[in-house]
Amino acid sequence: MRVLGIDPGLTRCGIGVVEGQVGRPLTLVDVNVLRTSSDEPVWRRLVTIEKGIDAWLDEFNPDAVAIERVFARSDVSTVMGTAQASGIAMVCAARRGLAVALHTPSEVKAAVSGSGRADKAQVGAMVTRILRLDAPPKPADAADALALAITHIWRGGAQARIDAALAAAGSRHARPVRSTP
Amino acid sequence: MRVLGIDPGLTRCGIGVVEGQVGRPLTLVDVNVLRTSSDEPVWRRLVTIEKGIDAWLDEFNPDAVAIERVFARSDVSTVMGTAQASGIAMVCAARRGLAVALHTPSEVKAAVSGSGRADKAQVGAMVTRILRLDAPPKPADAADALALAITHIWRGGAQARIDAALAAAGSRHARPVRSTP
Repeated sequence: MRVLGIDPGLTRCGIGVVEGQVGRPLTLVDVNVLRTSSDEPVWRRLVTIEKGIDAWLDEFNPDAVAIERVFARSDVSTVMGTAQASGIAMVCAARRGLAVALHTPSEVKAAVSGSGRADKAQVGAMVTRILRLDAPPKPADAADALALAITHIWRGGAQARIDAALAAAGSRHARPVRSTP
Repeated sequence: MRVLGIDPGLTRCGIGVVEGQVGRPLTLVDVNVLRTSSDEPVWRRLVTIEKGIDAWLDEFNPDAVAIERVFARSDVSTVMGTAQASGIAMVCAARRGLAVALHTPSEVKAAVSGSGRADKAQVGAMVTRILRLDAPPKPADAADALALAITHIWRGGAQARIDAALAAAGSRHARPVRSTP
């Protein structure tokens, strides 16, 4: 399974691809950060992010896209841009028919480090170990994108089967993983 | 000048087109509300909104798109979806090269009613009068979308010339109307 992870942001949007399956070593495919300038109007920045994500989806053809779930209680000065970037990321994936999953920061920290309260350095260190890298990916947004992809692979299997079963049953209450905004 | 106004929202996204110029009677071209179900995952709802806005842009070919500026201090339970819908609206317009402008609720209320504290009913009544309609557009999201378009036409002329001059001067500090997120 190949998963594209996105840590959404207007100034720095982490993006990374991880391949593997539960119980087997995971492999880093590629990782980077999409950057936009605060000198640009927000709509131009969002179009740049859309083009960047589309280019990654074209190049790496992932099976699923894992995006950090953004909360309204986050830092007020950046939360609107982060929410908008996450919306663009979701649309880029969903209009191709790709599976989309939102994972909270706590879920990601717990999945990769065993603690929902791990700090950035711990997450970076665990991503480095899990993917057998020489050094933690920089900046933290890049490591976070990989941590999201790892989380999705590790959590995704069981949940994806449950969602598929619910969807097949046509339940009005069927909801994909963390679908609420 | 033909302006498409968008009152962004995940459950109800107001959308309306107004034609005219400062000092002349304005005309309603069309107005409606794009709706998505909270039973759907957020990414599917955002794709539905994207398709709806694209269809309106295709049909009405506006000169500019005016979108309500969303604030982080808005109602927490809906603000993330509203921010995401506004991001999609901006991208739909910007990737076609259309002028995008964000107007705050206070600016819109002040433009159409003379008071930045006007209530929904007052805005609806003024939109009805300005566009010479038989009754206020319903629901309020539809009236708000038209109020945004009216605001843009009335404020837009002077500001657009200033922005164009700044852009032409290549100023690092040139910023379109209300560009900050």
